[in-house]
Order: sequence, then structure tokens, then C-alpha cells
Amino acid sequence: MGSNIDKLVQNAVPGVAKLHPYQPGKPVDELARELGLNPDDIVKLASNENPLGPSKRVLAAIEAELPELTRYPDGNGFELKQALSSRFDLKPNQITLGNGSNDVLDLIARAFLQPGTNAVFSQYAFAVYPISTQAVGADLNMVPAKDYGHDLSAMAKAINSQTRVVFLANPNNPTGTMFGRDEFRTFMTEVPGDVLVVLDEAYSEYVSDENYPDGIELLTDYSNLVVTRTFSKAYGLASLRVGWAASAPEIADLLNRVRQPFNVDSLALAAAKAALADVDYLEAGKKLNDQGLIQITEALDAKGLSYIPTKGNFIAVDFAQDTAAINQAFLEKGVILRPIANYGLPNHLRVSIGTQEENQRFITVLNELDLNGES
Amino acid sequence: MGSNIDKLVQNAVPGVAKLHPYQPGKPVDELARELGLNPDDIVKLASNENPLGPSKRVLAAIEAELPELTRYPDGNGFELKQALSSRFDLKPNQITLGNGSNDVLDLIARAFLQPGTNAVFSQYAFAVYPISTQAVGADLNMVPAKDYGHDLSAMAKAINSQTRVVFLANPNNPTGTMFGRDEFRTFMTEVPGDVLVVLDEAYSEYVSDENYPDGIELLTDYSNLVVTRTFSKAYGLASLRVGWAASAPEIADLLNRVRQPFNVDSLALAAAKAALADVDYLEAGKKLNDQGLIQITEALDAKGLSYIPTKGNFIAVDFAQDTAAINQAFLEKGVILRPIANYGLPNHLRVSIGTQEENQRFITVLNELDLNGES
Repeated sequence: MGSNIDKLVQNAVPGVAKLHPYQPGKPVDELARELGLNPDDIVKLASNENPLGPSKRVLAAIEAELPELTRYPDGNGFELKQALSSRFDLKPNQITLGNGSNDVLDLIARAFLQPGTNAVFSQYAFAVYPISTQAVGADLNMVPAKDYGHDLSAMAKAINSQTRVVFLANPNNPTGTMFGRDEFRTFMTEVPGDVLVVLDEAYSEYVSDENYPDGIELLTDYSNLVVTRTFSKAYGLASLRVGWAASAPEIADLLNRVRQPFNVDSLALAAAKAALADVDYLEAGKKLNDQGLIQITEALDAKGLSYIPTKGNFIAVDFAQDTAAINQAFLEKGVILRPIANYGLPNHLRVSIGTQEENQRFITVLNELDLNGES
Repeated sequence: MGSNIDKLVQNAVPGVAKLHPYQPGKPVDELARELGLNPDDIVKLASNENPLGPSKRVLAAIEAELPELTRYPDGNGFELKQALSSRFDLKPNQITLGNGSNDVLDLIARAFLQPGTNAVFSQYAFAVYPISTQAVGADLNMVPAKDYGHDLSAMAKAINSQTRVVFLANPNNPTGTMFGRDEFRTFMTEVPGDVLVVLDEAYSEYVSDENYPDGIELLTDYSNLVVTRTFSKAYGLASLRVGWAASAPEIADLLNRVRQPFNVDSLALAAAKAALADVDYLEAGKKLNDQGLIQITEALDAKGLSYIPTKGNFIAVDFAQDTAAINQAFLEKGVILRPIANYGLPNHLRVSIGTQEENQRFITVLNELDLNGES
């Protein structure tokens, strides 16, 4: 029987066996189990989650949906699409709903990439782009970063006849870098019209910069543009998995064909609709993030640590040495950060912006670290 | 710009543009909008959902999880895997969790099927098998049904050198047919050990037949077997999307590589764990289904209609004529059934077993129908 399963596994699709699955932030319960800590004493600043806690309007929407728990979701997401259409001045047939924006990115790879084609993305860009690309057997066309961010000019030059998709993250995770409107418009003139440009705006709600290109507003200018957004960050719904894409209807039609019919669940659909309407929650989260960024960068400056300037709800701190031991020291004090060695940044740790108290926990441990002694 | 998008769409993966997405049961709200009906007056017997309504233990588990709504799910599903392992005598590394069993079936296709390979499945089998197969560009190897059910002997003979996966549904949806233990064991001796056999047991909890082969118990005998189960039916969690697969660890490892890291959400994980423990709910649902099947088959017998004998929580009724107009007549009376013309069964309608009252609504409309007049 052993030889049969070996042969069966060898018969698997080539890219799949080589995949290195996405490494999530360590869950609080997992750390508590591992180190025997009290979960309530643990601070998680590892997954760019919204520190505000759940929106009351969202909780009410979930409650209202509970009696229908035994029923399948609306596979067309009628009400959420209506709400998104109205809020962002889109037509419902331009929208693709996903089980998180991860799902939407995966749908794009499945619809447009196959063996023999490639996807262009930047060094240090979000890990799901290469994972989704490899999973369908397409080639990775990675372009070196410039100042930890996207080198759009080099990315345009990297496009070749087999390129079907370009993945852009703005701001980028895990580095927090942003490119501006003019740079993006120039890039779009350099991209062939039959190459799909995926503009991942998972963190757009945190950006204040006037020069930030709002992808949804730019959709009318570029028929080969897909903009992805998520409810996991500023809208506070990471647990429920809702992301979406806006694009030309022709592209949305393809993505919806490969989409699983009930990929977004009923509570998630109701929660996202409510979150979209809760403008106060969004504003409060933005304000808390702005304050937290100041709090944390002041502490980093005081400690003499450099960091990548960020437009998101997280900051990549440069410890100028391998961070494995430093990360472990934070874990033992109950502070979960995000190692990003798998992104090729072994000297950095990514810190999500939390509440003032959570940020202070990070700062307290940081200030106790003897970085010279540990190097 | 129009020509660019045409070219872009033509560049899409060939199988995707040809996909005919899964046709779900019509949601209550959709029918209410279309016909101006009061949603509370509509009875949905279209999606094989659990008519009991939510389990109280599940509702409590969801409530307990709500404070963590802004946090990502545990991507490893630690607690649910522990509960499943304990309940079904499996190791956690044998389990793959999915966003419904649809997701698990899709993961199997993505891990084992590619252009040049094929998947064997039965005529009238669950629509997701051909959809997931086509989405990855593999070939459909459909075997004619025998008495509306799986012809396992013919399916074994249909396997060729390019077959990587056989999809079996037991009981089958939408026909309700079942094959027995001996027949299945004979089949497994005829299948090459490097061909994956997927045994979809979405409706297993409803089966009373002593001859029913419990796939999970048989896993130790067949290393090329994957058993899929769902929380959408007997466990009453269709809204929340939780399915899972049990297999050899080597196969689970591959499926988990292609799996999206947070494919099952936090409320779903908590709800599934609670549902698994709610034995009373499971028993009550089974009892209600047994009673409902009697209630409905008696009415069908009285009306002189034949139907496919069923082991599930639904029954495919043969109206001996095209059912489009009949289905519309039910809709106008607020009763949603499931047309299965897309399965090649235009003369049948599938009726999910509901509560006694819901079943009576179906029976009342049925008895008002002038079937001869409408033929």
C-alpha cells in the first residue's frame, strides 16, 4: 500500500507539492498552549487586525441572521453587492465577492494563469501572489523592490509575452510602502491592455496621502484593472472572511464562473453589509491607527531603531540583526509580532498597530531588550 | 479599449470561460422580491437544508466567539480537528477542513487534476464534480447511471491511464441512491491504487441502511480513499460553510498546501465544534427526516407519482413530463423546489424533506395540481 500512495502523491499536480503554505500570525490560543500563558495576558500585534473590537452594528446584523443558520447563503450576495454598488458607484455585475480577498486573488490566478504563463509581482509583496501563482503551475516573475516598495517602472519592463497578470499591493504588506497616482498612471500606459493589473488595496482605508490613487475611481479609465478590497482590516471582520474585487463586468463574469457558489457565508454577508454602513467605526479605527503609529514610531526613534515608512496599520521594524531570538523574547512576554524572514526580511519584524495599551505592551518589552547583547 | 478586454478575456484559462456555474436553490428573499410575496409565507424545500432550525448549543458557541470578530480564524482549525479526531477515531493530520465540502472537492481537483488527466464520475452525480474538474482543465469521464445510481462496475472499467480521481456520492445528490458495502469493496479492488477515490458522504447521517459503507471506517483499508463530509445538512450549518475530508496524511498534506489559509471562518469553526457535540440535535433531525419521508411518499403514492427511492433528506419526484411549468406553479404558491433539468432530469423535481408543516405546504400545492391539464 505504501508504494501506491507514493505513486498517487507523485501524480499530484506538480506545483502543489512544492507549495509552501502561507504562514499566518500565531494565534493567541496557540501561544497560550505552547508557553502555558493566560490568553488574556497575550497581546497579538501580528496580523494587522482591527484593535477596536467588533462594531455594534455588525454584531446586531449577525444576531438578526442567526435564525437562518441552517439555510445556505445567498450565492449571489445580492444585498451586499447592492450596498457596495451604491457606496462605490459601481454596477453589481462589476463585483466579485470572495472568502477574504485571498479568495479573490486565488480566483484571479485560476481564471488567468496556467502553465506556460507568468505573473509579475514585486519582491517583498504579499505572499499570496506567488502562492496562488504557483498553485496553478504558472511562473513567478518577481521584480526587485526599490526602497522596499514596488519599482513600477521595472515591473512594466518585466512584462513579457507570457505575462497574464501583474499583482500590485498599495499600500504593500508587509512593508507598508505606497506608490502615487502619477506613477501608477504612467505604469498603466506601459502595460499592454490584455495584461490584467490587480491592484490590491487591502489597506487603502488607512491611507491619508493625497497622492494615493484610488483604484475604484480609476476603473473607468482602465478596462484591464481589477481592484481588490477586504473587510478584514479597517472594517474589522478578519474572522468572517469577506473580500471583493471591482473590475469590468467581463472580468467579473470570469471570476464568478470559477468562484464556489457559496464562498461567502451568510453571517459574513450580513456583517459586511453592516460594516460598510458603519462610518463611525471606520473613522474611529483610522484615528486610533494614526495615534498608534505616532506612539510606536516615537518609541522606535527613542530606541534608535529604523523602520520602513508605512501607510498601513502596521510597521516593519529593522532590528539590524536576525530577529528570531528577538521575536522569541517578545513571545515569552506574551507579545505576538510577525517575523517576515519568509519575505526575505529576516532582520525585520512587522508590528501591527494596536490600542494604546497594546502598543505600550510592545514598547515596554522593546525597551527591556538588550539588542546589543542579543546580536 | 473594447478590443483589449476581448483579448484579455480570450487569454483566460480555457476551461473557465466554458464553466456553467452551479445553480443553487432559489433563496427565499429572491423569490419574495420576484413575485412580491411575504418571505414568511415562503417554504424552501430546495437545498436539502435542515428544517429543525439552529441548534441552541451552536448558537451559544457563536455568541461566545463574537468578541473575537476582528481577529483572523485559527488557520489550522486546531480545536475542530481535535474534536473530529476524537469523534471519528482519526489523527488530526488526516483531516482537511473546507469552506463547505464544495471547497474540499475543489481542493482535490486542484491537487490531482490538470489538463491531460480525467476524473470519473456518474451520470446524475453531484454537479460540483464536473465543475471542479473543468475548472482545472481536466477531462470529464462520465459513466451512465444504473437505475439513477452509480454503476460502480462500469465506473471501474471507465478508469484509464489518465484517470487521477473518481468521484462517488453515497447517497447521491440529487437522486438519493445508495450503493452497499460489498459493492464498494469490490469496486475498490478494481481501482488502481494510485487513483484517488473520493467518497462524498454529505448525506451519510440520514442513512439507516445496515449495508451502508461508512467511508471513515474503511479508510484504514484503502490508502487511496478520501472521504468528504459536511456540516451543511444533518448538522444544520449550511449558512456557515464547513466541510471536511478524511484521508491518509500524505493526501491531507497536499490538500492543505493548496487550501487558502483561512478558508473556514472563526464562527464556523466554533459552530461546527458545537454541532459535533450536539448528539440530540442530530438524532432529532434524523427522526424528523424519517417521518417527513413517510409523509411525502404517502402523498406521492396517493397522487400516483413515482419517485427515486432515497436514502437522503430529499426525494426526486418523477412528474413524467417537463417540470418547468409545474415548478413555476409551486413557486407562485410560495413553495421553492429544485428543478434538476441541469442534471439531465427535466421530468423530475427534487423536494427536500422539511418540517411536517412545510411538507404539508408541498402536499397541498401538489394535490391542487392538474397534472394532466398541464402536460
